[in-house]
Amino acid sequence: MSKAFLDEDFLLHTKTAKALYEEHAKDMPIIDFHNHLDPKEISDDKRFSNITDLWLGGDHYKWRAMRGNGVPEALVTGDWSDPYERFLAWAGTLPELFGNPLYHWSALELKRYFDIDTPLNEDTAPAIYEACNDRLASPDFSVRNLIAKMNVKELCTTDDPADDLRFHRHIRESETRFKVRPTFRPDRAMNLLKEDYRYYIDELSLAAELRINNYSDLIKALSIRLDFFCENGCRITDHSLEGGIYREASELEVARIFEHRLNDGALTVEQELKFKSRLLIDLAKEYRKRDLVMQLHIGAMRNNNPRMYEKLGPDSGFDSQDDMNYAGELSALLGIMDESYALPKTILYCLNPKDYEMLGSLMGNFQDGSMPGKLQLGPAWWFNDHKRGMIRQMETLCDYGVFSRFVGMLTDSRSFLSFPRHEYFRRILCDFVGDAVERGEYPADMKFLGQMIENICANNALKYLNIKE
Amino acid sequence: MSKAFLDEDFLLHTKTAKALYEEHAKDMPIIDFHNHLDPKEISDDKRFSNITDLWLGGDHYKWRAMRGNGVPEALVTGDWSDPYERFLAWAGTLPELFGNPLYHWSALELKRYFDIDTPLNEDTAPAIYEACNDRLASPDFSVRNLIAKMNVKELCTTDDPADDLRFHRHIRESETRFKVRPTFRPDRAMNLLKEDYRYYIDELSLAAELRINNYSDLIKALSIRLDFFCENGCRITDHSLEGGIYREASELEVARIFEHRLNDGALTVEQELKFKSRLLIDLAKEYRKRDLVMQLHIGAMRNNNPRMYEKLGPDSGFDSQDDMNYAGELSALLGIMDESYALPKTILYCLNPKDYEMLGSLMGNFQDGSMPGKLQLGPAWWFNDHKRGMIRQMETLCDYGVFSRFVGMLTDSRSFLSFPRHEYFRRILCDFVGDAVERGEYPADMKFLGQMIENICANNALKYLNIKE
Amino acid sequence: MSKAFLDEDFLLHTKTAKALYEEHAKDMPIIDFHNHLDPKEISDDKRFSNITDLWLGGDHYKWRAMRGNGVPEALVTGDWSDPYERFLAWAGTLPELFGNPLYHWSALELKRYFDIDTPLNEDTAPAIYEACNDRLASPDFSVRNLIAKMNVKELCTTDDPADDLRFHRHIRESETRFKVRPTFRPDRAMNLLKEDYRYYIDELSLAAELRINNYSDLIKALSIRLDFFCENGCRITDHSLEGGIYREASELEVARIFEHRLNDGALTVEQELKFKSRLLIDLAKEYRKRDLVMQLHIGAMRNNNPRMYEKLGPDSGFDSQDDMNYAGELSALLGIMDESYALPKTILYCLNPKDYEMLGSLMGNFQDGSMPGKLQLGPAWWFNDHKRGMIRQMETLCDYGVFSRFVGMLTDSRSFLSFPRHEYFRRILCDFVGDAVERGEYPADMKFLGQMIENICANNALKYLNIKE
Repeated sequence: MSKAFLDEDFLLHTKTAKALYEEHAKDMPIIDFHNHLDPKEISDDKRFSNITDLWLGGDHYKWRAMRGNGVPEALVTGDWSDPYERFLAWAGTLPELFGNPLYHWSALELKRYFDIDTPLNEDTAPAIYEACNDRLASPDFSVRNLIAKMNVKELCTTDDPADDLRFHRHIRESETRFKVRPTFRPDRAMNLLKEDYRYYIDELSLAAELRINNYSDLIKALSIRLDFFCENGCRITDHSLEGGIYREASELEVARIFEHRLNDGALTVEQELKFKSRLLIDLAKEYRKRDLVMQLHIGAMRNNNPRMYEKLGPDSGFDSQDDMNYAGELSALLGIMDESYALPKTILYCLNPKDYEMLGSLMGNFQDGSMPGKLQLGPAWWFNDHKRGMIRQMETLCDYGVFSRFVGMLTDSRSFLSFPRHEYFRRILCDFVGDAVERGEYPADMKFLGQMIENICANNALKYLNIKE
Repeated sequence: MSKAFLDEDFLLHTKTAKALYEEHAKDMPIIDFHNHLDPKEISDDKRFSNITDLWLGGDHYKWRAMRGNGVPEALVTGDWSDPYERFLAWAGTLPELFGNPLYHWSALELKRYFDIDTPLNEDTAPAIYEACNDRLASPDFSVRNLIAKMNVKELCTTDDPADDLRFHRHIRESETRFKVRPTFRPDRAMNLLKEDYRYYIDELSLAAELRINNYSDLIKALSIRLDFFCENGCRITDHSLEGGIYREASELEVARIFEHRLNDGALTVEQELKFKSRLLIDLAKEYRKRDLVMQLHIGAMRNNNPRMYEKLGPDSGFDSQDDMNYAGELSALLGIMDESYALPKTILYCLNPKDYEMLGSLMGNFQDGSMPGKLQLGPAWWFNDHKRGMIRQMETLCDYGVFSRFVGMLTDSRSFLSFPRHEYFRRILCDFVGDAVERGEYPADMKFLGQMIENICANNALKYLNIKE
Repeated sequence: MSKAFLDEDFLLHTKTAKALYEEHAKDMPIIDFHNHLDPKEISDDKRFSNITDLWLGGDHYKWRAMRGNGVPEALVTGDWSDPYERFLAWAGTLPELFGNPLYHWSALELKRYFDIDTPLNEDTAPAIYEACNDRLASPDFSVRNLIAKMNVKELCTTDDPADDLRFHRHIRESETRFKVRPTFRPDRAMNLLKEDYRYYIDELSLAAELRINNYSDLIKALSIRLDFFCENGCRITDHSLEGGIYREASELEVARIFEHRLNDGALTVEQELKFKSRLLIDLAKEYRKRDLVMQLHIGAMRNNNPRMYEKLGPDSGFDSQDDMNYAGELSALLGIMDESYALPKTILYCLNPKDYEMLGSLMGNFQDGSMPGKLQLGPAWWFNDHKRGMIRQMETLCDYGVFSRFVGMLTDSRSFLSFPRHEYFRRILCDFVGDAVERGEYPADMKFLGQMIENICANNALKYLNIKE
């Protein structure tokens, strides 16, 4: 008895799963606590003139798939190409993506935003292109309406400490249906070896109204900005740990490294890593003081195609998973934070799924009993954000941690059409739980399980972010 | 058709699985060839006055879960806390552990030892606390009776070479229902950098009645102790390989390192590793001579929380998986042993499951045809000791080795209530086999399969340990 | 409802899977684009006098299994042993291999070549031995007839650049049912540290009719041989990357390393790696010019048992998976090739399955839109070539790539009886696809799916190899 594609019970294979989804998951608000949406576009309530811009404008997931399917670059990222031709190239790629999350995501996006049930392919593309563009012409399809339509209540964008957050403030003043919060992500203050580092320090000095002359000024300036972020609703921070996690160095050594950089002195990658390690430890203290969440995204390897990097710059679909070992370094880093009672609530994300179990077990070393789920194994990130990846993350969490305390899903997306990924996650979550129950591996206590599902869908994240409704 | 939790057919999903379990697995004796039970407590036939002591006394698995659920440390490890309060804290944690092995283990323990079917949670806690304690008051619940009740026939504890094994001897003289054998685990002779190393060498000298002045004395003394262990029923040895596996060094260099240590000279971690490598090779010879089993537990990363280590010491729930690479080193180590016909029967355990396939394939390089399954892929160890982990270990063994020769399950536990984990394993084993058969992937030859199940449950381990009934 | 072992629907669990297999997979020709068959034996149309020679003659998979089951070496590799005794030893091992691919492979081989349905074990061995040998006595069981019987249309053997390909030419002239193509595998030109390297350079000089005095001569000579291979039908090349993947070095440095070797100077492993890296980059250019496929087999660790290596030499069953990290090195290598528009079509194989996801994500960085599936995640290789391994490879490809563009299965085998592994793969493939469809995860568009199956079974590989029918 074959199931129809994308029917009401999509991905739900047991009665328990269906009940959990319908009665407990479906209507929960969306708390999207990590994404890369552009606050300016939300502030402006931008509208898109065609589905190509909205779907293919900045989505490097789709770009990669198109390249893999033999679509020439002009139709992949070429903004000067005809939008209809690009759409056709994507429509021709989609059916080839058997088993790929893009197939499910795209189908859900067509269904939930545009009420289109027909699978997209080269034959159906003309009609679907027209139908989508017709709808986009309506004000109902402005960015804010797209967000509200999906029952999103909280959004955390990703922002630089020097940002004036003017768009966040404008949104807060003009939007009642959902909140958009900034995330403190001090990449540019970390990346000492970047060419424009000194320029950035000037920017940060200006923003903090404090001239940064040494390492302790840097901490002060970042703390000032952190306060400013908190005043503007910030509850969460973000760091990407790449290449290495932790190198020991004295405060003095780090101060000297920083001053050397301000004087335009040359530095090694190891010196940068020492600086980053110390800065992260010092920032963690500040996060902990303010009860902020610290996100650590571990193991991306970026810009791996030099030819295309030259052409398109970063974030254009040439990143992948590193495979470094880091259990010892990460353990040392968290141990230092914990030792001085300065370990904030922390979410650990790995990009290489081989590290799930290691992270899941390591996480447990720093649960201090101060709150449920202080350390979190982050939901399946980026390349892992598909059915099998989500299940693997949940299995790891079950095996090593306290599943019911999981803070759940986020989109990590640059696209305003990505919110159905929460639905995707919730269906997979309910099926995962329902399956265990119907196999007799957990009592069919629907009251407890329903509450657990609601918590994982939204309540746990709200609590974790200290958001009171 | 939902299955009830923990019913007769718990984890058994096919007729074949049920038949294999009922007719071949269920009644096999338990051969628990690796655990950390205290021989003194068995010798004394200790009794517990309440379930809290028995359950939460030393079980760092439960401690970790409680911390992850936000239980303050005083109720986790605080022996001065009220036992009932601690029990309540655990009862409040348990239902949150959806999908965690502790959920299944605890339920099986309540059912098999205490005849309690009700799921433990905050509501049911008071009645269950009382019922358990009532039963513990009966002499039927002494340590030895707990062991005998579970049909345990052989137990291997984990012991230091300097131990006088007086408790083992006392048990042997006073207990007919099961045997308790010592395991030779020379950690303290290995760990050159430990502060009390010289003190330990004195201890070992005394025990061996041989003054240890140099490396060759050390081997002699350990061999003397090994003989003593064998006289007292020892059939198996144990080593934990952490941080690194093998470094080449000449015998002369190792002898000098050892003497330097005896003279209180400073040594590096690399020097210690050279010493350990050579000592392991020299001990392996001795194991092989005596036809003993060598267990290698690979990849633990211990005491990762400095603050808590200061407070509680080792084995309190702050260990996790390392992620080092070691294929080359392990291969070199086993190759050296094999080359001089001095590779004993060896069980390889990995803590990081990413290493299963590597180990499974490496193991095959040293099967020498002298006996079936001379090299063994150890059953799912510690953090892997859950349903998914067991299945992963069995799948690896199927894919790379000779499944029917598997020596099966052990508890690795410090708790006298852990023996139902053998039932847990057996159910998962029978379901794993039954599923393959009913999917048409192996002939339904019940005679062969039944024998295979009995062998994996107990016979293979008995043969491997040279235990004749 | 239990399924019979190895029935018509072996491994097919849904109606969709059965329909896909029967109507689309079953009758597709076999394109075995990578194996280690001996062209001389095909040229000679060799016949085997007994099943032992055919089955146990060179199959190190079976040897490993027998050793693991305790069979003494004399019966494993001892060609002087009685063939019937060796057959019995294998027959006694087979039933113990529950869940091992050898169990399925052997059963399929008996069924497809010899029409024998009875499971092989010690009881059935005498009759099966006789029946097989009877059939082998018929000319229908010559090597070429074994190949033709399985509907094989294309075979790519593995060959040295200095090979005169005389057997390939003879086969081309005398065989119409299938083509045998050489694969360019310049291991011996790569392995600078091998004792016979200078001898090999002489051989290569002779073959290329060009005296190799320096690095640029080496490239020239290899290019000449590459042209010769292409004239003889070569469409694919092969490299094994072991121990390390890429080390940067200037052309000058590499030229000096090579000349130093020609002068019998001593070199380090690092120098060899620099040489190999550069040579691979220079060869890749040549492959790309000729539109050849480049295969990279990554992560084997060979000859790990020194005692047995001494006795039996390489390829006798003492290899296993390495666990090195190599994302950064592999990315750098492919990036350099791509940057100079000199990255050929490339198939990436990993031996350690922990690397699948890393490879799957890395692969996407070099898809350049010039053709569908330019970079390929190779089918499950060697130790991964079993049901779970194949599924894992397909899942990775789904999650990270464009599944429909997959070039599919190969045997990698040294045995003339291995072609039913394509049937094994096809059944698993159809079941994998059918299961997703019946679970509602892809539309039941049988026209598209049937075409996709046919493409993965044969058409994609033919296109990838530029073979026009």
